[in-house]
Amino acid sequence: MKLSKHNLDQRLEHEYDVIIVGGGAGGLSAAIYLQRYRLSCLVIEKGKGRSFWMQELRNYLGLSPETPGRDLLKQGQDHILELGADYLRGFVEEVRDEGEAFAVKVKVGRQDSIYPVFRAKYVIAASGIIDHLPHLDHMQNVYDYAGYNLHVCLICDGYEMADKRCGLFVGSEGAINTAFVLNWFTPYITVFTAGQVSVGEEMRQKLRDHGYPLVETPIKQFVGHHHEMTGVELTDGDIVPLDTGLVAMGSHYHNEYLKSLDLDWKGGNLVTDSMCRTSHPRLFAVGDLKEGLNQVSIAVADGTLAATAIWREIRRNSAPRRWEDNLIGAVP
Amino acid sequence: MKLSKHNLDQRLEHEYDVIIVGGGAGGLSAAIYLQRYRLSCLVIEKGKGRSFWMQELRNYLGLSPETPGRDLLKQGQDHILELGADYLRGFVEEVRDEGEAFAVKVKVGRQDSIYPVFRAKYVIAASGIIDHLPHLDHMQNVYDYAGYNLHVCLICDGYEMADKRCGLFVGSEGAINTAFVLNWFTPYITVFTAGQVSVGEEMRQKLRDHGYPLVETPIKQFVGHHHEMTGVELTDGDIVPLDTGLVAMGSHYHNEYLKSLDLDWKGGNLVTDSMCRTSHPRLFAVGDLKEGLNQVSIAVADGTLAATAIWREIRRNSAPRRWEDNLIGAVP
Repeated sequence: MKLSKHNLDQRLEHEYDVIIVGGGAGGLSAAIYLQRYRLSCLVIEKGKGRSFWMQELRNYLGLSPETPGRDLLKQGQDHILELGADYLRGFVEEVRDEGEAFAVKVKVGRQDSIYPVFRAKYVIAASGIIDHLPHLDHMQNVYDYAGYNLHVCLICDGYEMADKRCGLFVGSEGAINTAFVLNWFTPYITVFTAGQVSVGEEMRQKLRDHGYPLVETPIKQFVGHHHEMTGVELTDGDIVPLDTGLVAMGSHYHNEYLKSLDLDWKGGNLVTDSMCRTSHPRLFAVGDLKEGLNQVSIAVADGTLAATAIWREIRRNSAPRRWEDNLIGAVP
Repeated sequence: MKLSKHNLDQRLEHEYDVIIVGGGAGGLSAAIYLQRYRLSCLVIEKGKGRSFWMQELRNYLGLSPETPGRDLLKQGQDHILELGADYLRGFVEEVRDEGEAFAVKVKVGRQDSIYPVFRAKYVIAASGIIDHLPHLDHMQNVYDYAGYNLHVCLICDGYEMADKRCGLFVGSEGAINTAFVLNWFTPYITVFTAGQVSVGEEMRQKLRDHGYPLVETPIKQFVGHHHEMTGVELTDGDIVPLDTGLVAMGSHYHNEYLKSLDLDWKGGNLVTDSMCRTSHPRLFAVGDLKEGLNQVSIAVADGTLAATAIWREIRRNSAPRRWEDNLIGAVP
């Protein structure tokens, strides 16, 4: 059921089989499987994750390419509630290992916040990432285009950028190398550093060799209409006309709540085994938090794997159910 | 575009980037990604695979739990045709490695068949499995219930069987062990061997210990109405009342066309790496053909992985695209 400030007291004494931190594609898929394995789970969703911002989910089998990410999330929420999962809007502040169970401290409510603690045998970290965006004085100008024709995922949206004039917005010199993958889709690439990046001579030469302009003047704003970005206005008044853009400024990982646990990391990613188990035997990680492709299809499969591994373990540690009342007579 | 006997000549000189054998969940997902990576692909589907028979796809995020498998397949076919993939109904008889490319021989048409040969750099084997069903004199009686409340997948449908009287239909002694997983969902299990299985004393004792009857009399027919099986009629006239059933008689792997290739197998499954590549560097396997869970969500992710690995390889071996006509003036 849907939990809120007003009814969550009912669950504070309950030990869930699994608490899932994050109600995106990975977390919802895990919850579908867990409930169908007859395990109890609570999904805690802070809201507005990466899939919420996807305007069109163009590469997920079964859904029309125009499906917005938020429709996928809504369908999944309805699906898991129908299966009896609990769902709470809240921000997970800390996951503490108490030995037999995890204690999960949640901030609920932006105003008059409360801080309930829920308990579960297992935790699935499914809280994902959020992309860094160019930082302008008026961020609404960025939000007007991000997720529309100002993309954040090359694998998802390279196809949409094919043979178009594309701005590549970077936050580090290394990220400029994205140009040499993006050029599979389009050669009409202009790289924007907004004056925030020190670019060495080797990289400058590589860009010249490919004919990709490097624009280091700070950005005043994106120009365009109706969520369709048509160029970039620089602080010196110049306008660079564009048909599309790709932001490659890295991501923020929503994993602060795990920092007290001793886990294996590779860069920002959690290291997991083939069933999405981290180096902690009762903690799983799915989707963008772990190594691998940041794709909805991968997160959904990760949820399947993590839920199945947990079910197998709980099942094997449970007493087998015998048929006490034999309805069809004596066993031969 | 849709290929048929009447227009496939147009593609016999074309070398595809990828031919995908099988248009189920894994194959269609791979085709979506490949087309969006701007690679050319042909999907060859023999029809009536495992997902076609699923009456309700209850555990795939984004689709209502009542969605039939054939709706997923139809949506995927429309999706890949819109993206420019080719699609052919036919049966792949052989995949031959010609060194630089694979030659894929297809039987097209049940009557007046023709046997065109298509070529591709890569092949994705996505042809899946089909479950063995109890063999009765009148197979239509089995088809009336299979995929409805006579299930074939414990992970998918254990939830539907919860606490119901369940018939477990086995084709080997080993398969009887399925009872000791199925009993997570229901303890009211009756095992049917149809007299085809030699059951040792140890297994008989284990069944007795759990209170699960073993019925070795051959089956005359399933009884029920409107796709709802309500029991089994034995050849001796007895009727065993049931609420549901699980068939655990193994599967037929659609992989005969690969037998001339030297590949690593583990049992009936192809061994693959983390990107679904088999031991042949240009052959990938996705979904039920490979090791792992036989789930739609896994097949869809497999398609993502195989397509991405192929794209990376083709891209890295291609000349980079330079911006020849610099639209915004000299490079700084």
